[in-house]
Amino acid sequence: MRARAPASSANLGPGFDVLALALGLYVEVTVEPAERLTVTTSGEGADLPADATHLAAVVATEVAGHDRLAVDVTSEIPVGRGLGSSAALAVAAAAAAGARDPMAVAVRLDGHADNAAASALGGLIATTTVEGRPVVRRLSLDPHLAFVVLVPDVALPTTQARAVLPASVTYPDAVFNLGRMGLVVAGLADHRHLLPAATEDRLHQAARAQLFPEAPALLAGLLEVGALATCWSGAGSSLLAITTVGAAGEVAAGAAGLMAEAGVAGQVLRLVADHRGVVISG
Amino acid sequence: MRARAPASSANLGPGFDVLALALGLYVEVTVEPAERLTVTTSGEGADLPADATHLAAVVATEVAGHDRLAVDVTSEIPVGRGLGSSAALAVAAAAAAGARDPMAVAVRLDGHADNAAASALGGLIATTTVEGRPVVRRLSLDPHLAFVVLVPDVALPTTQARAVLPASVTYPDAVFNLGRMGLVVAGLADHRHLLPAATEDRLHQAARAQLFPEAPALLAGLLEVGALATCWSGAGSSLLAITTVGAAGEVAAGAAGLMAEAGVAGQVLRLVADHRGVVISG
Repeated sequence: MRARAPASSANLGPGFDVLALALGLYVEVTVEPAERLTVTTSGEGADLPADATHLAAVVATEVAGHDRLAVDVTSEIPVGRGLGSSAALAVAAAAAAGARDPMAVAVRLDGHADNAAASALGGLIATTTVEGRPVVRRLSLDPHLAFVVLVPDVALPTTQARAVLPASVTYPDAVFNLGRMGLVVAGLADHRHLLPAATEDRLHQAARAQLFPEAPALLAGLLEVGALATCWSGAGSSLLAITTVGAAGEVAAGAAGLMAEAGVAGQVLRLVADHRGVVISG
Repeated sequence: MRARAPASSANLGPGFDVLALALGLYVEVTVEPAERLTVTTSGEGADLPADATHLAAVVATEVAGHDRLAVDVTSEIPVGRGLGSSAALAVAAAAAAGARDPMAVAVRLDGHADNAAASALGGLIATTTVEGRPVVRRLSLDPHLAFVVLVPDVALPTTQARAVLPASVTYPDAVFNLGRMGLVVAGLADHRHLLPAATEDRLHQAARAQLFPEAPALLAGLLEVGALATCWSGAGSSLLAITTVGAAGEVAAGAAGLMAEAGVAGQVLRLVADHRGVVISG
């Protein structure tokens, strides 16, 4: 079977490890019976070893209960850039291998419950753990929103991005993030109510700037070229500008200019949200 | 002029100092020109000094710019129980005295931006401070929800309830509250998605239990008698059971039984949300 799953952008500023939204950028996985395991890949991530250690092969083998499979992966999702490429791959591979609950498989084998939930369900989601199990809830997402993603050529491994996080936070900073989360949830439900302050955060973004020193100026610059709000995408290195469908072209052009000025090599993606999540295509 | 404002329940578990919802329990304030300041009060809070120090007089005098006013207050909102009585009073008094932005006046003179926003706007709101100013956003609130409030006879001053809060929180606990906030926002928008875990919190409720040792058992008991989720109302002493219109009678009956069993004297209120906020009635 063949299945497709969308990329995702997690955290969205204040909603660290909780909020994520699915983006219209896809990975497609085909899993077919074969005499022995073969893995073929194309597109983004095609430089990873195409063998039994490939995440798509690990997931498909686990779901099928054997490894007599031909696994093919074609991806548009840049790897290691905070766009949920591994979660999307795991969700698509699980679905293509016939899993009844691709999200659960992806969380078990890949982690990243926030990205996996967005890739599986589409739209905007909140996820957390209740009694050891991931729980996901949909939140309202305004269809007028569009997303411009600044994708540097340099990857930023999540392990490194997690290592810079502090062990504790001040009480006011914890409350600060709760307040901003209220604003971002309201603003994503209705873009007319989205303030630049809604994506401010005191839990992770500032600490991570040491890994990507140009990020604060780029985030501020994206507001100046017309974004409604800006934040890191997941653990980076991508940066997300939240904008409207009508303004996305201008913001994307501005984003390219900002990268050039800052001397940050990479690409700019102009995307809309994905509302379908994982889709089995036959 | 006469104005009416609803009570409110803030925090709602994880949304400390951010979330609040307006409840159909009211204070009404009339402000009329007079030769000198008079304050008359009836209902809840009528035992407070009826003089220039009364919050309604302070607010009306500030808004009018003089104190030649007859201020009358009639309230259904128990005082010092975490139901936003002072914020509702300030909002109603400001509106009755002709303030264009009753919420801003209430926040300036009384604080409690979360309660004031809910009393002014009605429904469910998120509030936070951006560059020193309160910012408020509406969130979706399912009209099928109802609220049972367990109101102990003993008040719990907010200053005392704040004094027990810690100076910092662990990183995982800060993230825990963000996750629960996602769940409670989703569950209040659609009661079918409201889990008991949605109102769990690691910032304030456990610390405050030392001031009201029966609270944890009462909160757990309210779930057993049919509540969808339960939490402290504001800084207490009231406890809030979130339920449906259809189940509210059963939960209210159960709540009365739980209070009796626990030896906690007080009353049980069965309420719906207020969606109108402050209303000027002529």
